[in-house]
Amino acid sequence: MFRDISAFHDWFADRSRANAYRVARTPLDQLDGWHFDAETNLVHRSGRFYSIEGLEVVTDHREVESWTQPIIRQPEIGILGILVKEFDGVPHCLMQAKMEPGNINMIQLSPTVQATRSNYMRVHQGNAVPYLEYFVAPRRGRVVFDALQSEQGSWFLNKRNRNMIVEVADEVELLEDFRWLTFDQLGELLREDNLVNMDSRTVLSGLPFLSWPGGSPGLDGRAAHPAEELLSWFTEARSRYRLDRRVLPLAQVGGWVRDAEVIRHESNRYFTVVGVDVQASNREVSSWSQPMIKPSDRGVIAFLSRWIDGVFHVLVQARTEAGTSDVVEMSPTVNCIPSNYRGSPVAQRPRYLDQVLMAPASSVLLDVVHSEEGGRFYHAENRYLVVETDEAFPPEVPEDFVWMTPEQLVGFVRYGNYVNVAARCLLTCMNVGHRVPEPV
Amino acid sequence: MFRDISAFHDWFADRSRANAYRVARTPLDQLDGWHFDAETNLVHRSGRFYSIEGLEVVTDHREVESWTQPIIRQPEIGILGILVKEFDGVPHCLMQAKMEPGNINMIQLSPTVQATRSNYMRVHQGNAVPYLEYFVAPRRGRVVFDALQSEQGSWFLNKRNRNMIVEVADEVELLEDFRWLTFDQLGELLREDNLVNMDSRTVLSGLPFLSWPGGSPGLDGRAAHPAEELLSWFTEARSRYRLDRRVLPLAQVGGWVRDAEVIRHESNRYFTVVGVDVQASNREVSSWSQPMIKPSDRGVIAFLSRWIDGVFHVLVQARTEAGTSDVVEMSPTVNCIPSNYRGSPVAQRPRYLDQVLMAPASSVLLDVVHSEEGGRFYHAENRYLVVETDEAFPPEVPEDFVWMTPEQLVGFVRYGNYVNVAARCLLTCMNVGHRVPEPV
Repeated sequence: MFRDISAFHDWFADRSRANAYRVARTPLDQLDGWHFDAETNLVHRSGRFYSIEGLEVVTDHREVESWTQPIIRQPEIGILGILVKEFDGVPHCLMQAKMEPGNINMIQLSPTVQATRSNYMRVHQGNAVPYLEYFVAPRRGRVVFDALQSEQGSWFLNKRNRNMIVEVADEVELLEDFRWLTFDQLGELLREDNLVNMDSRTVLSGLPFLSWPGGSPGLDGRAAHPAEELLSWFTEARSRYRLDRRVLPLAQVGGWVRDAEVIRHESNRYFTVVGVDVQASNREVSSWSQPMIKPSDRGVIAFLSRWIDGVFHVLVQARTEAGTSDVVEMSPTVNCIPSNYRGSPVAQRPRYLDQVLMAPASSVLLDVVHSEEGGRFYHAENRYLVVETDEAFPPEVPEDFVWMTPEQLVGFVRYGNYVNVAARCLLTCMNVGHRVPEPV
Repeated sequence: MFRDISAFHDWFADRSRANAYRVARTPLDQLDGWHFDAETNLVHRSGRFYSIEGLEVVTDHREVESWTQPIIRQPEIGILGILVKEFDGVPHCLMQAKMEPGNINMIQLSPTVQATRSNYMRVHQGNAVPYLEYFVAPRRGRVVFDALQSEQGSWFLNKRNRNMIVEVADEVELLEDFRWLTFDQLGELLREDNLVNMDSRTVLSGLPFLSWPGGSPGLDGRAAHPAEELLSWFTEARSRYRLDRRVLPLAQVGGWVRDAEVIRHESNRYFTVVGVDVQASNREVSSWSQPMIKPSDRGVIAFLSRWIDGVFHVLVQARTEAGTSDVVEMSPTVNCIPSNYRGSPVAQRPRYLDQVLMAPASSVLLDVVHSEEGGRFYHAENRYLVVETDEAFPPEVPEDFVWMTPEQLVGFVRYGNYVNVAARCLLTCMNVGHRVPEPV
């Protein structure tokens, strides 16, 4: 436990010093254990972990009708789990100072357990995953939240992880990279850039269920739209649009260039597949190599917000990405890398991007930079924003958008496959980070 | 409106007499408009509607580890919709006397709209679908229930339809094959064999939301397991099991025989693909031919039930079928064709089948025979049962099963992709059919 945030920072700096990490960029052709197979996909010699393959996408729900791109395939389901325990009546989360090769600042604050299936089945013969026994059956403790959730659809094909929150009453052994933090402390840390990692943020989006036992929060009458209207809006989007995908050999992915170093788009936009050699003194294995996705620039993940009849609402988008498993998911109002659209005609820029980027400072309710998963994504940063709309903003929105309360959105998080990772992470910044004002 | 059920039956008999129907079995090789393509799949010359293809299934969650079978592929999403309107304060459903070639009794009671995408896009140049305008945007009326729901996973690959209930206040023109029925009248008719069709039953499983406005019913404290435990049980099953499918040319489906007449399993078990020539005076087109799936025998769809602390519970199974889109769905306790297991060792018979088939009459709370979709399935009957367990039944159940209240199960129906068609249809027989006793 920490008496204040500066005590946390002392511990966190200490954990950083206590271990030695080294991440070096390496050409893909020289990546130990990885090679391009007969189909030209980038695979591990064990056939496990994940692979970089090609994907052809045909859809009537994006800026262009079809495209090809490299994509990560990792069909297995990992576990992202946070252990919660009360001390003196105050719930605390067991968080981990964890190194990931793609992390900005190298170590970030992770869930209690953040394990791929390969990790916890110990495919790579590494150390056991600490605290895993709280998250696999038979479990001690009470499961508060347990849902399969999608990850970045632009970079992952149909990828999902199991997000879990488990509450325990028993004594829990405290290992040196782990500490108990209150929700208030996590809220403070979520306002710092690149500290609370993506895995923590997505799991914490299920947190409200701790305080709403047995109930489904927010599906209530004060919102602009009752739950059945939101469900119908979403069903309509899933039914109306088309998303057809075909996995291709990487060599058949048009518009992308593979050289000895990397795989990149010929325009240098979107992202690059890079290789890294990693050394770490406190991971399951002490050194390894892996390919990663390095986005071309910092992205924007933003909700436009609005008070409707005294109730705070955010503007949710039904969005299709290359890797979305079921056509659309509920997404933030804006979710893109703005510089990909530099020079594009206004009509081809993502809807509402300008409202977000040009908002006056007085309308910005939340503005923080966080990293995406450092185990697969290299220095992938997004600016998380909540921007209040003004009187001039038209209340009617296009059919792909709908106003809902954050509580309604959290209600959908519970069922999995509804809310995308960007929206879940932004929800956590709002709900745990406490930056959204009370009703006026 | 009908003053009583005998008035309904008079009208229904009249509708049956008013139209001329003829369904004749025809060899698959002579099915007008259909042929076996280069991949030996059975397809329509337009490339539309649906096709009969082959499927290889590998799973660790069924009686055998892998098998191949013919399966229907129909990727498009149809609409099954019921219009509801109050007359003198009593809600009524607009139901249709509709002929389908596979129906026992030829006509059954259907939803207001029961249309494939081909139907409502008018691919076959037929008549417009009546009342469709109430179910496609922009709609008059209030959407009460709107979810994408799976259909028979043993016979359909990843098939789903949009289930909708829309409430209107305006005057609605009444066409001659349509009548308004109260829920009580539908409840009575659900107790008759082969009358209320599958499409009506699945849509009506969303009905309880009419009486629980804005709320999620049944996720409450009186049940044996709170909602978060049920969600976790389900997430566990979706994560634990494997379901890999590969579409095959029909000729590569081992164990199945194709002759000039039909496609059948060499054991004559499971189902047969048959052809029919159809004539009907009141359908979108007056005659057509189509392949259908004819199950080998009548099936059983049954819940075991139990009172737990004064609350009625049913035993729900996490079940995998060949065509299940996401590994498992919530299913009745038992869902099979018993004669497929004739002569099998007890250990290979479906769990709890004997408890259902050998239950004393005094334990049988519900027992009615209904048909599955007559547009794709030929004389496909299931016996729908709810069987109360006795004191001797062990309260602990295997990990694929869990006790939940019917209200909790209805809560999951709302979100789609959770509850399979058998469980939804059986729920409707219980909830609308009023056959389950009040607490003692």
